[in-house]
Amino acid sequence: MTRAELTQNILRKKSYLCVGLDTDITKIPVHLLKAEDPVFEFNRQIIEATQEYCVAYKPNLAFYESLGPNGLLTLEKTMKVIPENIFTIADAKRGDIGNTSEMYARTFYDYYHFDSVTVAPYMGKDSVTPFLREGKWVILLALTSNAGSMDFQLSEICSPVTGKEEKLYEHVLRTSQKWGTAEEMMYVVGATHPDLLSSIRKIIPDHFLLVPGVGAQGGSLQEVSASGLNDHVGLLVNSSRQIIYASSAEDFADAARNEAKKIAAEMNLILEKRFS
Amino acid sequence: MTRAELTQNILRKKSYLCVGLDTDITKIPVHLLKAEDPVFEFNRQIIEATQEYCVAYKPNLAFYESLGPNGLLTLEKTMKVIPENIFTIADAKRGDIGNTSEMYARTFYDYYHFDSVTVAPYMGKDSVTPFLREGKWVILLALTSNAGSMDFQLSEICSPVTGKEEKLYEHVLRTSQKWGTAEEMMYVVGATHPDLLSSIRKIIPDHFLLVPGVGAQGGSLQEVSASGLNDHVGLLVNSSRQIIYASSAEDFADAARNEAKKIAAEMNLILEKRFS
Repeated sequence: MTRAELTQNILRKKSYLCVGLDTDITKIPVHLLKAEDPVFEFNRQIIEATQEYCVAYKPNLAFYESLGPNGLLTLEKTMKVIPENIFTIADAKRGDIGNTSEMYARTFYDYYHFDSVTVAPYMGKDSVTPFLREGKWVILLALTSNAGSMDFQLSEICSPVTGKEEKLYEHVLRTSQKWGTAEEMMYVVGATHPDLLSSIRKIIPDHFLLVPGVGAQGGSLQEVSASGLNDHVGLLVNSSRQIIYASSAEDFADAARNEAKKIAAEMNLILEKRFS
Repeated sequence: MTRAELTQNILRKKSYLCVGLDTDITKIPVHLLKAEDPVFEFNRQIIEATQEYCVAYKPNLAFYESLGPNGLLTLEKTMKVIPENIFTIADAKRGDIGNTSEMYARTFYDYYHFDSVTVAPYMGKDSVTPFLREGKWVILLALTSNAGSMDFQLSEICSPVTGKEEKLYEHVLRTSQKWGTAEEMMYVVGATHPDLLSSIRKIIPDHFLLVPGVGAQGGSLQEVSASGLNDHVGLLVNSSRQIIYASSAEDFADAARNEAKKIAAEMNLILEKRFS
């Protein structure tokens, strides 16, 4: 999917919501456990209920892998019920030496047909560029939403590029934006750092940001949108647990729809203010 | 497996060789393609041929994942033919927010029964500690063997711990060694940086190091061992392609055995000099 198509989808649906499919078999409604593949049945109903209100789905690979090979079969089936025009993100946080990143790229692009993969930057350029491919997207970790983002991402480094002190995540942004264009790279910036979003936008004005951490992790949609939106929208805001576990009873899909609808309505107002 | 057990295995076998199972279906001998599961058949024969000369096996997850759910079935079967007393490493380079790293830990420890997982440090403490578990090991990336290790790992940062300038990988070593003991954490240090191994040993004198990059990537076993060995040996040196693809003909297992035997013989001499 191209950036223009993604932006069009957002403006048409009036939503930049990404629904995180962190489906945990111990958290899904009990009545689904009778299904042949409970996690798939849960995902199928969540996707059916929320697709009107979101523009992206983000399966979290760990949740599927923890069930062994069958979990990956569930992922494969899940990918097939996501509508063609909805952007898909393999939230996998991969990154390895070149020949290995290339294998991961084949996994997510060729086998499961994802549009994008989240990638960790620690191993540098040759661990990231194998994920660049026409029509596909690298979503590179910059500043994550967790407490551990303070341990290294916020370390002050002396930049060999600018000669000035900057945080490691800023160095990652400045360095990596030379590896690919804003038409093929996005960045993960957690909603738990809204104060830093404006300065991030100065470094990468054009790129899409994938923003986790709204909802269960405490980030605010209003704050993120105020500093994060750019002229092509440039934001995908993820919500996982708040939507998919909105109810643990038989009405889980309706509850998820309502939650997604509520967030999309808030996004609609924000987009109207900015783009009309 | 405890550190004492690992050290004992090394001294008994007179080898600190780890064989990397980066099994690529396009590179295995053609006659195996008739087997029901060619990658498993290749692994089974490689393991049978090399187990006398190595103390660890390191399947590279990307190679199995690229084949979809069936690739993970192959991994599962492969794990079952690795002898109990050989250390197993899931080379997965994972790391995510706490609940997700916990899912990955379950994947590799509970489902596939690995002894250890390689973990990327970028997301900090709460992305790493879910992999700490009794009898299991976190193998944290410090200084990797690829060219991209220069991009961020060698960046100069102003350490909040020491107040002095240090490289990012040194900061990762100093910070992360407070998260777990040398009985449950190891570090990845690429053989392509032999000049830095002595200073790494000053920061982490006790930890085991997993050293990739000998062989195909150009690192030297002699150099790595001279600066890397400590009083509990403290080294696992990995070789993948050099061993498993030593021959692409029907004699591949014999060729792999000879290659492993040759490396182990060199290790034997090094260990005799140091530990007798």
